[in-house]
Amino acid sequence: MSAMFRHVAMFRWTADATEQAKAAAVAGLAGLPAEIGAIREYRFGPDAGLAETNWDFAIVADFDDEAGYLTYRDHESHQRLLANVLRPVISERAAVQYTFDA
Amino acid sequence: MSAMFRHVAMFRWTADATEQAKAAAVAGLAGLPAEIGAIREYRFGPDAGLAETNWDFAIVADFDDEAGYLTYRDHESHQRLLANVLRPVISERAAVQYTFDA
Repeated sequence: MSAMFRHVAMFRWTADATEQAKAAAVAGLAGLPAEIGAIREYRFGPDAGLAETNWDFAIVADFDDEAGYLTYRDHESHQRLLANVLRPVISERAAVQYTFDA
Repeated sequence: MSAMFRHVAMFRWTADATEQAKAAAVAGLAGLPAEIGAIREYRFGPDAGLAETNWDFAIVADFDDEAGYLTYRDHESHQRLLANVLRPVISERAAVQYTFDA
């Protein structure tokens, strides 16, 4: 077993986010692993719709350690996506980072 | 690649949850994979404290498919833990389920 560092984020879209804007957000996320070498696993997706109280979208990102996560968090490609594409369509965000044994 | 079904849950503890009660919740969660065969991966932990706006605790659970998740969601051991140990110490919960290619 070795420790991994995981970032989990959940979003709710704004009421007026268009399907096109949400698709652009998803496409932008899909491009991050190719640009940010610190990412070990990057899995995200829209909620499956099993519970009315669920949020709209989740991301789970795994890194070797906290430093890897911080590299991702502060990476220019990530920050640019957040500012230009993600934040405009997000009404609520919840996040947790935690260490686990893989 | 094969599709997996992921459940992500995030919590905030109640202001008056004791360390003992939170430890009991964590111990209860740690026992679930041995009791619920549908669980493929089960990783959880307390927030690392990197951001003040973060929530307190996250769980990421992977299943072969939606049916596996529903087995977990409705399993007696899970329901008993929720009712007796988890809900009393949780003030907020956010969840998303999504499919991803593993």
